[in-house]
Amino acid sequence: MQDVEQVLAANAAFYAAFAAKDADAMAALWARRAAVACIHPGWHPLRGRDAVLASWRSILGGPGSPPITCSDADAHVYGDSAFVICIEHIPAVELIATNVFVREDGAWRMVHHHASSFARAVAMERDPEEEEPGPESGTLH
Amino acid sequence: MQDVEQVLAANAAFYAAFAAKDADAMAALWARRAAVACIHPGWHPLRGRDAVLASWRSILGGPGSPPITCSDADAHVYGDSAFVICIEHIPAVELIATNVFVREDGAWRMVHHHASSFARAVAMERDPEEEEPGPESGTLH
Repeated sequence: MQDVEQVLAANAAFYAAFAAKDADAMAALWARRAAVACIHPGWHPLRGRDAVLASWRSILGGPGSPPITCSDADAHVYGDSAFVICIEHIPAVELIATNVFVREDGAWRMVHHHASSFARAVAMERDPEEEEPGPESGTLH
Repeated sequence: MQDVEQVLAANAAFYAAFAAKDADAMAALWARRAAVACIHPGWHPLRGRDAVLASWRSILGGPGSPPITCSDADAHVYGDSAFVICIEHIPAVELIATNVFVREDGAWRMVHHHASSFARAVAMERDPEEEEPGPESGTLH
């Protein structure tokens, strides 16, 4: 596979582990040696593999973990690192994510996940004519 | 300067251009050839230098552009690419950002900015004993 396809496959594996609530698969996806971080929606950043994996074990083991799917994944590859932007679909809500990967031991492994709310509904409401509403309509940058 | 210091300097230059509403300085910070993207708070992703810079010209030229400062910047460098996590301070609100950089023509240039709301106040409210509230307290992942 080409790099872009490999990175998209790693991104898909992340959402498959998430949807399956498979903490072992999730742990295997994250980098072993490269420094990792994670920003869950609305929360402070977590730094380091131990803190990040503990958060995932808690999320995947909890009763509130919703089914999740991913769409519109777009990979940007720069040598041995890459990021993917995608839309996360959870019942009744959409989130937007940035997922960063590095090549480690020949595999693309996750080093950062940042997910946040996505105001597509709000944007549509503001200007139904505008296909790609710009951030200038927002109250912040 | 070492790579981490250079990346943190590039990140600081981004917020300096933002605070000064300097669209030319902002344009100079973004990569010329590497693919770029940007996720402003709550909005759909922008892809490509033209769309990203147009959004910044609109934001920096608008009357609603607030003063901004950055704190707690933490750089993760992987060869010729890097990302920074930091807290953005705008009056009455804090945001969390992931900024991705690549080395292009010997300079660290931005390829991605993802900013989103940061619920420190909410987290404190949920459990004032807990210094680092975990995402498991949230309603989403």
